Amino acid sequence: MKKKINTAMLPGFPEFLPREQMAFNRMLATIRGVYERFGFIPLETPVIERPEVLKAKEDGETSKQIYMLEHPGMAMRFDHTVPLARYVAEHQRDLVFPFRRHAIGKVYRGERPQKGRLREFYQCDIDVIGNGSLDLAHDADVLAVVSAAFDALKIGEVTIRLSNRTVLQGLASSIGLADKVTDILRTVDKIDKVKREEIERLLGELGCDAEAVEAILRVVSVKGAPADAVAALRAIGVSDDTFAEGVAEIETVTNLAFEFGVPASRLVVDLSITRGLDYYTGTVCETNLVACPELGSICSGGRFDNLASAYTDAALPGVGISIGLSRLFAQLKEAGLVKLDAATPTKVLVIPMLADRSVPLSVAGTLRAAGIPTEVFLENKKPGAKFAYADKQGIPVTVVIGEDEIAKGVCAIKNLATKEQIEVPQAEVVAKVTEILGSL
Amino acid sequence: MKKKINTAMLPGFPEFLPREQMAFNRMLATIRGVYERFGFIPLETPVIERPEVLKAKEDGETSKQIYMLEHPGMAMRFDHTVPLARYVAEHQRDLVFPFRRHAIGKVYRGERPQKGRLREFYQCDIDVIGNGSLDLAHDADVLAVVSAAFDALKIGEVTIRLSNRTVLQGLASSIGLADKVTDILRTVDKIDKVKREEIERLLGELGCDAEAVEAILRVVSVKGAPADAVAALRAIGVSDDTFAEGVAEIETVTNLAFEFGVPASRLVVDLSITRGLDYYTGTVCETNLVACPELGSICSGGRFDNLASAYTDAALPGVGISIGLSRLFAQLKEAGLVKLDAATPTKVLVIPMLADRSVPLSVAGTLRAAGIPTEVFLENKKPGAKFAYADKQGIPVTVVIGEDEIAKGVCAIKNLATKEQIEVPQAEVVAKVTEILGSL
Repeated sequence: MKKKINTAMLPGFPEFLPREQMAFNRMLATIRGVYERFGFIPLETPVIERPEVLKAKEDGETSKQIYMLEHPGMAMRFDHTVPLARYVAEHQRDLVFPFRRHAIGKVYRGERPQKGRLREFYQCDIDVIGNGSLDLAHDADVLAVVSAAFDALKIGEVTIRLSNRTVLQGLASSIGLADKVTDILRTVDKIDKVKREEIERLLGELGCDAEAVEAILRVVSVKGAPADAVAALRAIGVSDDTFAEGVAEIETVTNLAFEFGVPASRLVVDLSITRGLDYYTGTVCETNLVACPELGSICSGGRFDNLASAYTDAALPGVGISIGLSRLFAQLKEAGLVKLDAATPTKVLVIPMLADRSVPLSVAGTLRAAGIPTEVFLENKKPGAKFAYADKQGIPVTVVIGEDEIAKGVCAIKNLATKEQIEVPQAEVVAKVTEILGSL
Repeated sequence: MKKKINTAMLPGFPEFLPREQMAFNRMLATIRGVYERFGFIPLETPVIERPEVLKAKEDGETSKQIYMLEHPGMAMRFDHTVPLARYVAEHQRDLVFPFRRHAIGKVYRGERPQKGRLREFYQCDIDVIGNGSLDLAHDADVLAVVSAAFDALKIGEVTIRLSNRTVLQGLASSIGLADKVTDILRTVDKIDKVKREEIERLLGELGCDAEAVEAILRVVSVKGAPADAVAALRAIGVSDDTFAEGVAEIETVTNLAFEFGVPASRLVVDLSITRGLDYYTGTVCETNLVACPELGSICSGGRFDNLASAYTDAALPGVGISIGLSRLFAQLKEAGLVKLDAATPTKVLVIPMLADRSVPLSVAGTLRAAGIPTEVFLENKKPGAKFAYADKQGIPVTVVIGEDEIAKGVCAIKNLATKEQIEVPQAEVVAKVTEILGSL
């Protein structure tokens, strides 16, 4: 026998068996539905972009992760946000602002594949881009989308944790270290991983005196309900306009989010969140599953006021969030929190029990014309195998048509959940099947 | 000013403005809906595959078109069929057969970009794969999907042109040139482009005598309603079992397609279709728009009995079709046959006419909770600009809330199509908006 080509999945490129794909798509459709319910356009940009576009905002790390193509001048997109900035810069004159779009698609990272690190994965993004300015209320609107998306996904209660980079920028400025804010944020970001003494030492190296270290650590440990957190931040007594502005932004955004309908218990302020080090400028947020905080953030985002500055001189501030669905799905599956039921969209299997299939085919045509996902079992197999197929696929209803049924002008409809079987005239098949499907 | 990065779209990577994207997605959703109505699983495989997998069935041409990645051992998919064969070979033991899946996604070709030749484009595929065997009725089922998809797309009447490679294989065999069938098909494929004398000369070079040339040209010029075409093929008097089997397959498939509900006028037999030269083995089909035959085939496919043979010794015969939506959409747009209306999924724009936005935000929250795609105009602009935004985006309904409305506990709802404006109590907003949207 000829040697066969290796068909094993490439590491880091997940693909699904049908039941998983159906469950994944259900979640994808849910997210898409919520995004569209909030008026985001389902915009798609090419998977391939110019490398210089992708590298425009690079911090060294991102650049290493870009999947290059052999064709020079082409590279794989690593997120949806950078292509959006490029799209808006390119099509600025043809777009209506504020521009709200969602992007649900695969992105690529040249990662070393390992648990939780994929090379191809879905990101589900929404962003609003303003022309010149963008009201702070959009930050709240985006939080309302996050809240609605997780309500719709029904994967358990979530906590949206909000911070604001302006607060930390103002803090750095107040201690005379405005230009070291990135380093301070990078240090502070380690707060859950290393000892407090180590953080103090590292901050000291950056030029923070004891008082400054104390202020920084007091600020980044503020956590709680928005009103309490805002009061706590003000009580720290940092005297800096930027700091005050950042605190006021937190207050405004959280109040507006509540007015948009985000439940009070779901939104907390947590200044330990610094969220990526590259393009965020104001609001930043992360989202955790209350029941599984160990999954880490399952939806993150924030405000970016200068993302398109590498492409255009126009000010195009934006705010957005992203759900990393591939990773979330894998984690939920592992935790047993994803329901894998049907392996097909088919709701009705028409089973011919005779050689002349004209009546079964025409019944299937009628069901399909009525919008009911229908298949016909067309292989020459024993009756048991035909029902086993419906069962294995998770198809809920079978319609059996044999000599007897044709003689009587009926179909035998079976609800596989209740095992109940009834005969109905062919003309009533659509109505009866619709009734059964409605009852499931 | 700093020099800006070039954001011009890469040639061959189409992207859309919102109105086009909405229209494109409407078509995509329609196709997806039809595919699922026929029980095809929305399977997705990675965009990146091993090059040896993609090159397994190469005929030299395809290989040149593969987009390689710099990382050795990775390449971009150029269609959905080869990855499907790889998927089925890889997951054979976990799948239920016949395996019906659809794939709607982007594929990549290393083409020189030019009109009608894209480097990234959507293909919308369905395929059924059998384990060991696959009943011929699936070929008819696939034709029924094509017919339903074009009914649903509402882009005008189509003609599905059907042929069968077995007929031509039998014909080649009957004239002692079974091993030259590919060359004969390649020659015959030029029939619309070169003179008959030239075809005769080329066939002569392949070893066909005058009688063989005559038979070939008679066979490939058979065109017409299935019953007539089958009679005409039999009347040619080719005495070869394979030929007879191919003709019988045409007869069976077309009869079953009619029983599945394909309108008689829509399906013709046309032996001049040879359809690709690599993997088809039996039924082949192309589809043309009756009003625009110059667009060429807008949906093609056929039976492939050995596609997975490079990956596995198991026999995994299949049949499928593909709609090249990106190219079709571009052609329809150029022909003025695509309706570009809304630039957003938003159906309602809530317009706050006062500084305190709490009531408008809460009304928006209520509309969204009811599943109605809703946006709030959040920028500080003049009233005219707010309505202009709804107008430019194609949002059909506005809900205005100012001091007066709040004092009276109402909202001012405007149907932008009829210009009719009414005041309704806040509690009735969802009902009234639903009524207006239902009337559009």
